Amino acid sequence: MRKKKEMNTDAKLKVIPLGGLEQIGMNITAFESGDSIIVVDCGLCFPADDMLGIDLVIPDITYLLNNADKVKGFVFTHGHEDHIGALPYILKQLNVPLYATRLTMGLIENKLREHNLLNQVKRKVVKFGQTINLGEFRIEFIKTNHSIVDAAALAIYSPAGVVIHTGDFKVDYTPVFGDAIDLQRFAELGKKGVLALMCDSTNAERPGFTASERTLGRTFDTIFAQHTNTRIIIATFASNVDRVQQIINSAYKYGRKVVVEGRSMVNVIETASKLGCIQIPDNTLIPIEQLKNYPDEKTVVITTGSQGESMAALSRMASNMHRKISIGPKDTIIFSSSPIPGNEKAVTRVINDLTRLGAEVIFQDTHVSGHACQEEIKLIYSLVKPQYAIPVHGEYKHLKAHARLAMDLGIPKENIFIISSGEVLELNAEKARVAGKVPVGDILVDGLGVGDVGNIVLRDRQHLAEDGIMIVVLGLDGESNYLVSGPDIVSRGFVYVRESDELLEEARNLMYDTIEGYLDKGISDWGKIKSGIKDVLGDFLWKKTKRRPMILPIILEV
Amino acid sequence: MRKKKEMNTDAKLKVIPLGGLEQIGMNITAFESGDSIIVVDCGLCFPADDMLGIDLVIPDITYLLNNADKVKGFVFTHGHEDHIGALPYILKQLNVPLYATRLTMGLIENKLREHNLLNQVKRKVVKFGQTINLGEFRIEFIKTNHSIVDAAALAIYSPAGVVIHTGDFKVDYTPVFGDAIDLQRFAELGKKGVLALMCDSTNAERPGFTASERTLGRTFDTIFAQHTNTRIIIATFASNVDRVQQIINSAYKYGRKVVVEGRSMVNVIETASKLGCIQIPDNTLIPIEQLKNYPDEKTVVITTGSQGESMAALSRMASNMHRKISIGPKDTIIFSSSPIPGNEKAVTRVINDLTRLGAEVIFQDTHVSGHACQEEIKLIYSLVKPQYAIPVHGEYKHLKAHARLAMDLGIPKENIFIISSGEVLELNAEKARVAGKVPVGDILVDGLGVGDVGNIVLRDRQHLAEDGIMIVVLGLDGESNYLVSGPDIVSRGFVYVRESDELLEEARNLMYDTIEGYLDKGISDWGKIKSGIKDVLGDFLWKKTKRRPMILPIILEV
Repeated sequence: MRKKKEMNTDAKLKVIPLGGLEQIGMNITAFESGDSIIVVDCGLCFPADDMLGIDLVIPDITYLLNNADKVKGFVFTHGHEDHIGALPYILKQLNVPLYATRLTMGLIENKLREHNLLNQVKRKVVKFGQTINLGEFRIEFIKTNHSIVDAAALAIYSPAGVVIHTGDFKVDYTPVFGDAIDLQRFAELGKKGVLALMCDSTNAERPGFTASERTLGRTFDTIFAQHTNTRIIIATFASNVDRVQQIINSAYKYGRKVVVEGRSMVNVIETASKLGCIQIPDNTLIPIEQLKNYPDEKTVVITTGSQGESMAALSRMASNMHRKISIGPKDTIIFSSSPIPGNEKAVTRVINDLTRLGAEVIFQDTHVSGHACQEEIKLIYSLVKPQYAIPVHGEYKHLKAHARLAMDLGIPKENIFIISSGEVLELNAEKARVAGKVPVGDILVDGLGVGDVGNIVLRDRQHLAEDGIMIVVLGLDGESNYLVSGPDIVSRGFVYVRESDELLEEARNLMYDTIEGYLDKGISDWGKIKSGIKDVLGDFLWKKTKRRPMILPIILEV
Repeated sequence: MRKKKEMNTDAKLKVIPLGGLEQIGMNITAFESGDSIIVVDCGLCFPADDMLGIDLVIPDITYLLNNADKVKGFVFTHGHEDHIGALPYILKQLNVPLYATRLTMGLIENKLREHNLLNQVKRKVVKFGQTINLGEFRIEFIKTNHSIVDAAALAIYSPAGVVIHTGDFKVDYTPVFGDAIDLQRFAELGKKGVLALMCDSTNAERPGFTASERTLGRTFDTIFAQHTNTRIIIATFASNVDRVQQIINSAYKYGRKVVVEGRSMVNVIETASKLGCIQIPDNTLIPIEQLKNYPDEKTVVITTGSQGESMAALSRMASNMHRKISIGPKDTIIFSSSPIPGNEKAVTRVINDLTRLGAEVIFQDTHVSGHACQEEIKLIYSLVKPQYAIPVHGEYKHLKAHARLAMDLGIPKENIFIISSGEVLELNAEKARVAGKVPVGDILVDGLGVGDVGNIVLRDRQHLAEDGIMIVVLGLDGESNYLVSGPDIVSRGFVYVRESDELLEEARNLMYDTIEGYLDKGISDWGKIKSGIKDVLGDFLWKKTKRRPMILPIILEV
């Protein structure tokens, strides 16, 4: 019965990325078949440089809300912020069940707890190899490897055929924790016939293979053996449980106590430890308060801040603002990470600060990627042999490089789809095509506000950031419309006021003349007066300073 | 006589970096001996990320102004912005003669012309090997290689001994234009005895040798041979005349016409061409307007924008905003550059946009550095054998890596000085020590304003950028001190006003109650009322939104 349904050639599957394509982050993709929609991942992304004051960005799920009765649930590939981070915000609009592997669900639950949603959301932990039924879909979780434990690929069975979504992955034959990626299952599914492969593109420009996470164990051992007289501080990604495991292994081997520092890392390690995803020998972990009881050369600090984030533990150490750890010549500091594009300068600043304090800083050859390089991508294609290729996870150049690989592997050009977020790809064994568009976009989160900051507010912030503001206030008599007070001029972020008396006095006089000019001519339309103020003052300031502060006329009716 | 003076053991030389140490850019160093000061370079740097709205940053030359009668002139190592860019601003405060090699002076003159200073400043073009006398100093210009033609190292002869300042340099045995670095002269000076070496640290972390600029000629030839069916667009640094020369060579060889696009590049090439620093075969360069008269595969465009600068020519092409060039599948675009730290994201954005338009983008192995790597630095030390090492040009981590190299080469640790901008290093053959500090700092240039934007203004801009502004205006009767108008609330950059009526209305009511409360209690001190407004409204908004806009109370006396 099921079998027959799966071979239905009238059936059409819709694949609708609501984010994550042509960008890094905010991964969320809807799959629709008949009256069923399932959603893979629900990630956030971090604000672009011009999104001033924004904390984070979540996807626009209008399409899901408009089809809320169809949505059967969210399934997750792994527990990184760009795959689970938007969930608390989205669940408040669309409360559907969640399906994920053990650690992924553990990290999701931490988020729900923070947002007081833990008791309001149905959820189920899924094992690798297990399949769940969601409406017209069945979804199988397949073991992969990534820079976080418990990452899964998904085989999505629909009436139109099977789609394999790799999530973020790499091929690690010798993972630190758990099994290697289940290549046999990819092969088995491939043998049976796979409609489409949605595969990670992040490293599609890089030739070769990504090294095994385990290679870093040896690296750490070497560094520990070479640095027997200093404290060792290692910064890495808070969620990289395997990395932390390996640092703990080396520490244990070399008789050092371990401190975990940085709130997000403490949270992840606690969760991983509770779920048995990390093994910490007894008497190895110590609270940071006890650090001072041990000699430097008997301790290791594992910390957040490898991206130079200004509030993270390592940055606070570097700027001498950390309350419990101060850096000096008896410190060896390892960046077990590589800078995410955009963070290079911040990372360099931290390295400079640490070096200036006398520490030795090691930042080369102490990290491996969590994403598949070209040879791994080719391997997956060769096992799965999909009819259609849909490159996912990456900027346009990554998707394009991925498409070239797929072509090299014999996928016909017309069967490769580089689609944009919002495009609806309709496919079955007969045909695939972009069959429409749904609304997508960035919803900005600023403090408690979700979506209340849009383009107008951002444009104002950019304007204010560039040249500040100049406010012209005046009081007009409500009836006779004559100037009863002001104009006063107040500025912020434009010029250092105490040293610019003359300029501001000139501006004030100019404003007085301008306003009186309007009133003398009997012009009483406030709109006209305001726009006159803007024009005249704007021209004056541009001539005098070549700057364009925001000019804000305020008229008080007295 | 001279000889005797140079061996004077009582004489002390002061080396005073006024910028450029522990940072990239803003290179300027004073050398002082008796009643003479000479200044090497006068560069700007680009604003840090938190310097909102700032155009560029120039050094604080208070020390030079306080000793203006001693200052004999500026000598320049080469014509990059971080070595000559601050000059027009500084000359307005301190007009002294300028000494530089041919192209360096040509580029300086372009700047002076822009600032209407050309006729007011004494200047002299110096040849390699030539020596000039400036007070107690003699300065010899020594040929080096760098990513701009006519770069010089300086041998600075003082009564206390000879200091060699390399400027930015690399060792290029096969330069594209002019001679290789004058290693013999370095050796000769070394043999006679050099007091101190101030050597470029930029690549001190990189092992090996920097490749010759000429290697790129072959790279371009190969790319041209492989892309006979597309237009070729090459982005590189505007000032890299040798790079442009090699592109022109390849274009000529493959029968393509060349367009130079981007104002700064056109300026540099015109100047270089006038001075004979670049050879352009007849009928090779065409104006951009004629581009359309030639088939794509017969043209090359050399353009600015290799750093992803949003207003540069290449960025405008990528975003389809260029008026004369539109990008498509018949374009091959080469980034002959590597991103300067901080520009990675912008460069990636441009690459993505170009790729999306269908162009092929090449950005690997098409650039060589202009700075000496470790083996070259070691070579210079081995020729010069200085008594003291003073690493220059680089962030702290580069200076530190450089210091380690110097130690490896046998310079005693106590003879290596990593100094900060503003520190006065006093040295002679007997002894060297940091003997004081002079004022240094960043002078911010914003539009026509030089130094009128300081920390307070920047802090305001950061605050405004983060959460916007909320202005509370009210009119108080001047005598009876009762509320005659308002309070009105106006906000910008805080929240989208039309969708936040309720919040703003609540805020207004709260303000009304607060102000009436103060007035009822007979409190008439405007300062108190204002700070009450700030506190109450700030708390209210934080509770409601978890944001902290700038709150600006304005009281009009009516």
